[in-house]
Amino acid sequence: MQQMRDFKDFTLITPEGRITVAAHGGRAKCLQRLVRLGVPVPRTVALSFDEVLRIAEGHRPDTARLLAAFGRAPLVSVRPSSGDPDWGGPGAVLNIGMCDARADSLAETLGREAADALYLRFVMAYAEDVAHLDPEPFEQAAELGGGEAVRAALAAYEDETEQPFPQDPARQLAEVLRSMARAWETTSARLLRQARGAPADAGLGLVVQAMALGMGPGESGSGVIRMVDVVTGQRQVSGRYLRQSMGRDALGRSEEAIYLAQDERGPSLESEQPGIFDQLTEIAERCRARLREEMEIEFTVVDGALSVIDAVRVPRSARADVRIAVTLAEEGIITPDDAVLRVPPRALTELLHPQVDPAAPRDVLLKGMAASPGAAVGKLVFSSEAAQTAASQGEPCILARRETTPEDIRGMHAANAVITERGGMTSHAAVIARGLGLPAIVGATGLRLDPRRRRAITASGRVLSEGDVVTVDGSTGEALKGAAPMLEPGLDGPFRKLLAWADARRDIGVRANADTPADARMAQDFAAEGIGLCRTEHMFFEPARLTVMREMIFTDNSTDRAAALERLLPMQRADFVELFEIMAGKPVCIRLFDPPLHEFLPSDREGLRGLAEALDLPLSDVTHRVEALSEFNPMLGLRGVRLGVTLPEIYDMQARAIFEATVEASRRAGAAVVPEIMIPLVSAKREVELVRGRIDSVAVAVKTETGQEFDYRLGVMVETPRAALRSGEIAQHSAFLSFGTNDLTQMTYGLSRDDAGRFMGTYVSQEVFPEDPFHTLDRDGVGELLLLGAERGRRTRPDVVLSVCGEHGGDPDTIAFCREAGFDYVSCSPFRVPIARLAAAHLALRARESVGAGAADDGLED
Amino acid sequence: MQQMRDFKDFTLITPEGRITVAAHGGRAKCLQRLVRLGVPVPRTVALSFDEVLRIAEGHRPDTARLLAAFGRAPLVSVRPSSGDPDWGGPGAVLNIGMCDARADSLAETLGREAADALYLRFVMAYAEDVAHLDPEPFEQAAELGGGEAVRAALAAYEDETEQPFPQDPARQLAEVLRSMARAWETTSARLLRQARGAPADAGLGLVVQAMALGMGPGESGSGVIRMVDVVTGQRQVSGRYLRQSMGRDALGRSEEAIYLAQDERGPSLESEQPGIFDQLTEIAERCRARLREEMEIEFTVVDGALSVIDAVRVPRSARADVRIAVTLAEEGIITPDDAVLRVPPRALTELLHPQVDPAAPRDVLLKGMAASPGAAVGKLVFSSEAAQTAASQGEPCILARRETTPEDIRGMHAANAVITERGGMTSHAAVIARGLGLPAIVGATGLRLDPRRRRAITASGRVLSEGDVVTVDGSTGEALKGAAPMLEPGLDGPFRKLLAWADARRDIGVRANADTPADARMAQDFAAEGIGLCRTEHMFFEPARLTVMREMIFTDNSTDRAAALERLLPMQRADFVELFEIMAGKPVCIRLFDPPLHEFLPSDREGLRGLAEALDLPLSDVTHRVEALSEFNPMLGLRGVRLGVTLPEIYDMQARAIFEATVEASRRAGAAVVPEIMIPLVSAKREVELVRGRIDSVAVAVKTETGQEFDYRLGVMVETPRAALRSGEIAQHSAFLSFGTNDLTQMTYGLSRDDAGRFMGTYVSQEVFPEDPFHTLDRDGVGELLLLGAERGRRTRPDVVLSVCGEHGGDPDTIAFCREAGFDYVSCSPFRVPIARLAAAHLALRARESVGAGAADDGLED
Repeated sequence: MQQMRDFKDFTLITPEGRITVAAHGGRAKCLQRLVRLGVPVPRTVALSFDEVLRIAEGHRPDTARLLAAFGRAPLVSVRPSSGDPDWGGPGAVLNIGMCDARADSLAETLGREAADALYLRFVMAYAEDVAHLDPEPFEQAAELGGGEAVRAALAAYEDETEQPFPQDPARQLAEVLRSMARAWETTSARLLRQARGAPADAGLGLVVQAMALGMGPGESGSGVIRMVDVVTGQRQVSGRYLRQSMGRDALGRSEEAIYLAQDERGPSLESEQPGIFDQLTEIAERCRARLREEMEIEFTVVDGALSVIDAVRVPRSARADVRIAVTLAEEGIITPDDAVLRVPPRALTELLHPQVDPAAPRDVLLKGMAASPGAAVGKLVFSSEAAQTAASQGEPCILARRETTPEDIRGMHAANAVITERGGMTSHAAVIARGLGLPAIVGATGLRLDPRRRRAITASGRVLSEGDVVTVDGSTGEALKGAAPMLEPGLDGPFRKLLAWADARRDIGVRANADTPADARMAQDFAAEGIGLCRTEHMFFEPARLTVMREMIFTDNSTDRAAALERLLPMQRADFVELFEIMAGKPVCIRLFDPPLHEFLPSDREGLRGLAEALDLPLSDVTHRVEALSEFNPMLGLRGVRLGVTLPEIYDMQARAIFEATVEASRRAGAAVVPEIMIPLVSAKREVELVRGRIDSVAVAVKTETGQEFDYRLGVMVETPRAALRSGEIAQHSAFLSFGTNDLTQMTYGLSRDDAGRFMGTYVSQEVFPEDPFHTLDRDGVGELLLLGAERGRRTRPDVVLSVCGEHGGDPDTIAFCREAGFDYVSCSPFRVPIARLAAAHLALRARESVGAGAADDGLED
Repeated sequence: MQQMRDFKDFTLITPEGRITVAAHGGRAKCLQRLVRLGVPVPRTVALSFDEVLRIAEGHRPDTARLLAAFGRAPLVSVRPSSGDPDWGGPGAVLNIGMCDARADSLAETLGREAADALYLRFVMAYAEDVAHLDPEPFEQAAELGGGEAVRAALAAYEDETEQPFPQDPARQLAEVLRSMARAWETTSARLLRQARGAPADAGLGLVVQAMALGMGPGESGSGVIRMVDVVTGQRQVSGRYLRQSMGRDALGRSEEAIYLAQDERGPSLESEQPGIFDQLTEIAERCRARLREEMEIEFTVVDGALSVIDAVRVPRSARADVRIAVTLAEEGIITPDDAVLRVPPRALTELLHPQVDPAAPRDVLLKGMAASPGAAVGKLVFSSEAAQTAASQGEPCILARRETTPEDIRGMHAANAVITERGGMTSHAAVIARGLGLPAIVGATGLRLDPRRRRAITASGRVLSEGDVVTVDGSTGEALKGAAPMLEPGLDGPFRKLLAWADARRDIGVRANADTPADARMAQDFAAEGIGLCRTEHMFFEPARLTVMREMIFTDNSTDRAAALERLLPMQRADFVELFEIMAGKPVCIRLFDPPLHEFLPSDREGLRGLAEALDLPLSDVTHRVEALSEFNPMLGLRGVRLGVTLPEIYDMQARAIFEATVEASRRAGAAVVPEIMIPLVSAKREVELVRGRIDSVAVAVKTETGQEFDYRLGVMVETPRAALRSGEIAQHSAFLSFGTNDLTQMTYGLSRDDAGRFMGTYVSQEVFPEDPFHTLDRDGVGELLLLGAERGRRTRPDVVLSVCGEHGGDPDTIAFCREAGFDYVSCSPFRVPIARLAAAHLALRARESVGAGAADDGLED
């Protein structure tokens, strides 16, 4: 068959032939590599992208000559071979060549029944996939069984097409090739694969392979083998084998199939055919080592002789993906660089949270936005108080609210998941939930909460009452009835090893946003390089502190205010001592008090009455004062440094707490703690000057009182467009500039993240915005302000430390942006730290170009 | 005395001497000019800035030689002579040289009583202003009267200083000069004059002048004369004359003084001393013509002989200022360029509104921010309904609210002035009031409204009830009890002439922001070049329309929404036809619907119940829907183009109304109307593309239906930082870019104009912001975005029309900024249009440098 090599249109796959992924697709190349490894692959011919495109355009290939390459009266299969299996493509067609005459001759070797079954199967596949006929009459024919079924199917074919079923194998093959070539070129197939990342001109190759039937006398059958567990990634032979079958029958009819390795659950190929099993595992090991990847190998046994039909990369969970990459690297099969690059950063999300078992049935109660990944089971509660009660009794609970406010923080801490009726991907509930690593569904479509009656009605009219057990799937945005089965998170050895490799390779820092000791511990566990944003306001919501806060808010003069704050000082100091100790010398960047004061005041009649009682003031006074403090646009109101300037006693107290904690933590640790203090919502240089003046004075006072020297660094959170524009002069007083991209995005777009949910879906689907700018940094607008701010800041102070804190900090695209702009670090919620670490490593490796990313990813090149 | 000219330190004022404003100050120069005009000025010596500075630094001038210039035993006065009288300076000291001997000799000519009075007066002035003694013992001494008073005063002087009262005139003069020179150099005097615009090195000159006593035998006395009425600017001799007096006594003791010109109110110089009167008016006319200014001339008559002591620019009201400038130009004394430059643009504010008579007594009830100038009297009402009721009965009323919302628009239209408890200079109430030209006080300190009981309690505890008559003085921010006397606005001939001259000189356009036919008429009356911003949302608050709006908001689908909007269409069309007709061919720029929908919904229980009834829906449904539409930060929510994209039927209706109105108005006028359509709150190019696509389709449809061709121009309101940054691509679809600096300032600073009031005062007083950025454009931040947006927009489309609309459009500094940046026009509230026209003319004239601005302003150079 040497002449096949000279054919212009078809290429026989041999060790020496020129087969490339770019011209023939991944499957053809993989088969050649199996051939080169000496694996027994049935004779195979590859059709190039060009050839298949010509066929789609009407060229009729010389299929008779092609079939001649497979000997006399062959049966063949045709499978797709595109650049990437994820792009989809037509299904395989088996048993091409079956006709009346071939059925008769096969009946002699395999028996009539098997021959009829093969013929029927081919007629049905041809009718449906090639001739595009209605499957129903063929299904009815199949019910007749045996030869009658074949005859009925052939008659049905003739009925539908007014043509007899083609008996010429060359014509059958030509039709199959044309059908598959055209299927690739339909508009829907194009759109689908482009959505999956395929280029517009992605081609389709085809491989034509001699059938290994797996049916007939002796040990005959087919199966698949993998050297790894697809869920865990542990090394372990798995797969199935089914006698008297072919193709992937062993997977499709797994109840009839046997196991491969010895297994207590039932019979196995290893125990029944140890010779074949040994041969198979030897081949699989060879493939794994030489293809540098865990493969799923499709094989056929014909009368005791083994053929390998196909091999594909093992489909796997994210968890398995990590373990496989690490194991291959540890065994020296791939490099640690390769291992790092093989795991997509966003896939780590799946490992960081428990998941609803994908195999389990789902009774979906409601659907909203998948605002924070992971899954949790618990009893439904409708108030933060109920959540705290449940938590105190050790009962897992799911907090459902119209929307959450900072007053719900403690309820959210107590809850195992959150559902809100309103709000978008960047609503308070969503942001806080992601920070806490709490699964969350926000903006639940059609849900109507009735907190007074402690119940809710879903869009479909189902009534949920307090105490009902539900499962929140934060990865899909669905809430399920009852307790769905779960898979636990996978922060195991391979995960840590992969991230250690990533850390050794990346060249931009990753810190965590952490407000509480629990956050800080998580940040340490996820190996953040420090805290990039510690929001201090959450520290004031504990009941004892909240009361003092409210008293402070109701004071009329500086003296009374300072006295109220004096009572908060020891609590704040203790907060900071604990944070410094947990972070053990790593930097901690503390943002001074930011929210508007009215967030600390009650808004309902009951709360107001309680407050009036607590403050011993007439209710009307309290109500009036609370109303006077309310704001039209709290986002743009009296908060941040504006409070620091107008009520400077608050920052004075915080600065004192930070410095006293610095002294205490430094003493305990025997090493200097250097706190970073960040001023929020700056829009003018003078704001920084005023705050800096007072903070420096407090530092001098604390140094004098304690007799202890210490250093600290003062910087600015750049979160208004004006601060970015004026960063040149702001940097005069700032050791660091940290871009708060959440607020900066809000102000640059004039778009409240809490209110955007109502139309962001429409906007993204109509491509008004290419992406939700609260998820993916808007490079064109917000990004320009970042670059401009960074450049102007550095012009004033070349060593100014630049960073991004906020939701975007954990987004790989944003990390790429920051890295290109020469930022020092990103800071994100603790749960995104591993993703950021891995993404940063990818960027560094890609930039170095030390590794051919394509080779590492598909493992198919020699 | 020719040798005085050679003195190095002092310069005798003669026609030939070298006296300049820059070296000797304005008063010295003015006196020289009077001398040159042949006016009888007593002998005067000028001390230069340098000389006075040397004295302040300790140099002791040879005052004996100086006094010798005035003959034997002279009495002299010393008056300050700085670069600008507005910069302040020490008071004049008269009668230097009085001592025991001089008193005795004067007693011979003037009588003992007069001599004692003069001596006492000098001792008291010297003690207080030169020796800085406690005035009390001298006031006690003065009560004794006659010679006894003099002796007691001299004794008190000796008691206090342990020195006898200086009897040497040279020493007296030396001390006076030193005291005045030092007073100029104190820190408080420096700060005061710098706040009034003086340069840091502003010098003080002094003029020493022989006293003309105005006391003694024959017709003797002193007075002032002006050739103009200081309040109206009408030509008319005014002033006062007091026998046996000196200096400005005639003004200080006006009840004893007589009139100058014949006057039915009492005796006059004209009837009693026609010769002196004629001489005086001749001098005054000569001064007016040659000094090219209306002067207030201080004169003394000594035994029938006239001396002119001093002359200063007549202090005047803004109204008089305009008339004087126009009259002088009409008489050819100054050029129209001079006339235009002489009136400060901001002074026009005073002419555009009625004023509380500054002479009237004021019983101040409350004080807040002076948010919108002018004054009004009316009965207090606490709701928009009450305001409308009062207006329908023809009763003027003052609307007092905690704060106003768009629902109060009709109430504000009905009211004569507005008072709010909350809000800042750019709150809804303030902005709308300025737009309506309605006097307003916002953020009234300590006021507590109780609308239910229809009363309010002021900070001082006074109770105001509905129906109480109050006067709102929007220029001072005070509300007065009862009906204060008023001065009416002055939009008279001179005003219009001055602005016509300004229009002929300016080189940047001025349009008006006008939402209603009333606004548009005012814009026409103030000669705006068109409407730069017509906010259409205010058109939906009439009760009939509001109901349809609410039905529209409650529709569930596009069809129902379009049906509801169909009912609004004829009303909108009529609005636009009327606007086009009023503007008579001038451009009208219509901004499409902007506010969030929830502004059209009621928020109180009663309103909700009414709405449920009107829509025939359960109250709970309506409440839930209204709550669901409410927003955390409405400023940053679902409004503007975001509504246009998500509920496109609204803009479809508006576009149709505009185009149908265009067809109708063009037909009626027989000339093409070319509407301008502006898209609000844009942040991305695609928003413009989507809206443009639909608007273009509506235009095609209307053209087809009516068979009428028309043009229109589509543009974008640049009011988010992102729109400014991306204006390059936005300009691809925009014939014009109009910068909405209100919202742009809010977003650039991250600062809500409605909420900024609470701390803006502190911020400006602590110089955190040099000015309230909602009043004066922030050149550094917002300004950079304007420049950047303009430059990028023009790079894409060189003929793109650039403008600023919003509050800043009427601010002279902003106009200067826009002119420098090459903007085409500014647009501001109709009431600011005259100011903007004049300010623009100033800029153009200054830029041409065709006029010496200094000369035009002080009128003191030859």
